[in-house]
Amino acid sequence: MNGAQALIQTLVNGDVDVCFMNPGTSEMHFVAALDDVPEMRSILCLFEGVATAAADGYARMTGKPAATLLHLGPGLGNGFAMLHNARRSFTPIINVVGDHASWHLKYDAPLTSDIVSIADPVSKWIKSSESSDAIGPDTAEAIQKALEHPNGISTLILPGDTAWNDSHDGPVTAIPKPAAPTFQADLVENVINILTSGEPTAIVLAGKALMEDVALTANRLATGTGAQLFAGRPTGRWQRGEGRPNIRRIPYPIPQAVQVLEPFKHIILVDAHPPIGFFGYPNLPSELWQPGTQVHRLTEHGEDSAGALAAICESLNVPHNSGPLAELNRPDPATGQLDIPKVWQSIAAFMPDNCVMSNESLTSGYGSEKFMAVAPRHDVISGTGGAIGGGLPYAVGAAVACPDRKIINPQADGSAMYSIQALWTMARENLDVVSIIWNNRAYRILEGELEKVGASADTPKARAMLDLDKPELNFAQMAEGMGVEGTRVGSMDEFNKVLEAAIKKDGPHLIEVLV
Amino acid sequence: MNGAQALIQTLVNGDVDVCFMNPGTSEMHFVAALDDVPEMRSILCLFEGVATAAADGYARMTGKPAATLLHLGPGLGNGFAMLHNARRSFTPIINVVGDHASWHLKYDAPLTSDIVSIADPVSKWIKSSESSDAIGPDTAEAIQKALEHPNGISTLILPGDTAWNDSHDGPVTAIPKPAAPTFQADLVENVINILTSGEPTAIVLAGKALMEDVALTANRLATGTGAQLFAGRPTGRWQRGEGRPNIRRIPYPIPQAVQVLEPFKHIILVDAHPPIGFFGYPNLPSELWQPGTQVHRLTEHGEDSAGALAAICESLNVPHNSGPLAELNRPDPATGQLDIPKVWQSIAAFMPDNCVMSNESLTSGYGSEKFMAVAPRHDVISGTGGAIGGGLPYAVGAAVACPDRKIINPQADGSAMYSIQALWTMARENLDVVSIIWNNRAYRILEGELEKVGASADTPKARAMLDLDKPELNFAQMAEGMGVEGTRVGSMDEFNKVLEAAIKKDGPHLIEVLV
Repeated sequence: MNGAQALIQTLVNGDVDVCFMNPGTSEMHFVAALDDVPEMRSILCLFEGVATAAADGYARMTGKPAATLLHLGPGLGNGFAMLHNARRSFTPIINVVGDHASWHLKYDAPLTSDIVSIADPVSKWIKSSESSDAIGPDTAEAIQKALEHPNGISTLILPGDTAWNDSHDGPVTAIPKPAAPTFQADLVENVINILTSGEPTAIVLAGKALMEDVALTANRLATGTGAQLFAGRPTGRWQRGEGRPNIRRIPYPIPQAVQVLEPFKHIILVDAHPPIGFFGYPNLPSELWQPGTQVHRLTEHGEDSAGALAAICESLNVPHNSGPLAELNRPDPATGQLDIPKVWQSIAAFMPDNCVMSNESLTSGYGSEKFMAVAPRHDVISGTGGAIGGGLPYAVGAAVACPDRKIINPQADGSAMYSIQALWTMARENLDVVSIIWNNRAYRILEGELEKVGASADTPKARAMLDLDKPELNFAQMAEGMGVEGTRVGSMDEFNKVLEAAIKKDGPHLIEVLV
Repeated sequence: MNGAQALIQTLVNGDVDVCFMNPGTSEMHFVAALDDVPEMRSILCLFEGVATAAADGYARMTGKPAATLLHLGPGLGNGFAMLHNARRSFTPIINVVGDHASWHLKYDAPLTSDIVSIADPVSKWIKSSESSDAIGPDTAEAIQKALEHPNGISTLILPGDTAWNDSHDGPVTAIPKPAAPTFQADLVENVINILTSGEPTAIVLAGKALMEDVALTANRLATGTGAQLFAGRPTGRWQRGEGRPNIRRIPYPIPQAVQVLEPFKHIILVDAHPPIGFFGYPNLPSELWQPGTQVHRLTEHGEDSAGALAAICESLNVPHNSGPLAELNRPDPATGQLDIPKVWQSIAAFMPDNCVMSNESLTSGYGSEKFMAVAPRHDVISGTGGAIGGGLPYAVGAAVACPDRKIINPQADGSAMYSIQALWTMARENLDVVSIIWNNRAYRILEGELEKVGASADTPKARAMLDLDKPELNFAQMAEGMGVEGTRVGSMDEFNKVLEAAIKKDGPHLIEVLV
């Protein structure tokens, strides 16, 4: 058994049995070892950003890491932006990054680079294996570190000779599971005191607190105490729709966010980052809360938020099963002239129960709320670190993670172009994804930002940098070029017909909506 | 005048007047300032890797840097792989990377990351501007550092508030040019001694030594002394064809390279990296020369190689204008069943004089040599750091740099998919590029690598990771989806007809060759 075989077998022993990959020469022994470990599923991606985002989407939906296989520093670099997002959602991922054979490094061959420097901003653990005997233990450590609280990214650098030399000790067989998550009693006490003070309080849920079990307990607590629930960041995975609490998201624009949070004297963070502006702007605050408002943490990411919230409920004698839950209100498909809210209405009309929504709609998401809040139950996964381009490959990962669920991928046009290669993997793996591309022929979200900084009709060069209409992109054509059936629609009747059929069929379909 | 305006004006004052960009919110003041500086040409790219590679291609063809505009750490990450290649060809580039306003950084907003850590492996100079007053001088320093010997990448990080605050001092107007390149007299003496020793000597040219003026002098010296010329790495830009010396490239496979260099007791490096293997392999050497062979450096990258070689010629009384030069031998277009060498024959038949060839053919480049060595004079630009995906965006940069020259882009299929978004910029800017995609439906270059490590028909999972045929990619369709006319051809007659027309017309065309 060589090092590469020991690596893959250790991954499988640690329940990491999917690898999204874009290998090169230095990873060829890993590739060659795939047939020796039948439990490992290897999924080819045509660009590394697709691989890393797919691993993120997969882990968000399974709770367990996938591996990626990346080609030295440049391959890791291509995957960096999507790893940045994964770090922001505390997603466990095992990156395996090939490197030159140890003795070859000193020659500074063309592909040599400082892999650690690239990996560091996104990794919680980095190690370059020193020998093929170390590979098994190093891989086991990578898995353990990724799964320790808070979850994160392990980057294992694999010099060629450690892959091809004999591994005398072979794989590690027993990889201990991380300790069960806990919560801190003193923080629970603090929140009890706040909630009994009678002062207006907001409870901000994010991360794993947007999963159904935590959100139901938070809803019970809020209803019983008069506190108000909000969804904050990161929103790596959000379970929404029928039978779940209808939680308001803190608005993205700073003035609206400040207004929404203005009434509260206390803000309690449950697995959430403090509510701050996505960007800093001249003459706008970074902190979305009022001076004098106190921000308290109940749980850090990955802690036992359900347990902490339940302990508070018990202490305050909050009744079980209290709190309003969303009731299904499925609309009829919209008809007439196509516009964005109507498309959302039709999505709500046709979406199956318990689908996964990989939502990178950006500005085209405005108007979705009234339909999605009362839609059939579904999981929403979306970008967490501000790097765009995750929507298509998150859908890839979610589809691999949940083969029995339909994946719906409402997708902005500009961001789709960062990882358009994901379509090919959807076709190759026959993944059950319906992508709905909002083709508005612009970086619409930036047009608002440009107006804020004083752009006008007198600044044609500036405005041209946000236009995608010269030439117009044809996403249906691009999809067909990658083996995915693509349809361009310009009316609601067409959209309804195509969406209904795409949801019924098995396998990927891209619907391009001209809005 | 604000910081962003001072930045752009300083760039223009330093003769940096093209910016390949993919901006986001944090770069909006830079975008808004574009209309205030009409001399700056801003070119939108749909993915940062297209922007950084285009800047590389542009600088290789003009000798002066372009700027890029990138969105914080993730944007820089997306551009990293192509910056890695640019570093390996010593290309001057000015990266402008937006960042949060200085006061906003402490909140660890979603897009916050360690930009310096990402930039460091590819940058020779990095600075985060501390104020809008510092922007002018910082930009001037970025330009100077990029142009100092050896050329390289400057990364200027631009916090939002330094862009939008007033710049009291405004732009820097006078940016001194770097000192003229020199050479080292002792290294010249050493080479004179070697060449007069009578021992077999190879002269390896790379970098700027593959430009016509240096290559002609090297050819004069080699012919006069019996030394043999080779092309080594990096080959950022190679001037070839009619009237230029026909220089043999050191083969890529290690056994062939060792065989080629075996006769030589001395290897003289002219702007070249020592000849070493691209990768380390079990049981193959890293050094391509024999034990006992001495490797000598004549010039470092960017030094005055022409001057050094001329000084040696003068010292040794080598006649002027000596040495064989390639004579034009333009073939007829090939006919009959399509194969790769025939396509190269037809390219040689139709290529105009003095075109630029952005060549990322990889395995489909085998067989081109006999045609290209005697083709009309042309410049070849290709990947230098082993990161694939540069072919299409280098063509973008070359076309912007050389609006009067035709760009021909023979392009492998797998690597085209890393930066396929470049096609849209070609259409938008009506760039004069003919892309010829070798669609062989595989990562062919890796199939050979996989065989070397023992893969066989018994390893279907491994082999599947190198197949691109399930589903087949249709590049003509993808091109049309991005506004570039695309044609798929399966016979030489079709290819000839389409190529001839594409070369005659103005603007981009993609020809997909099924090989």
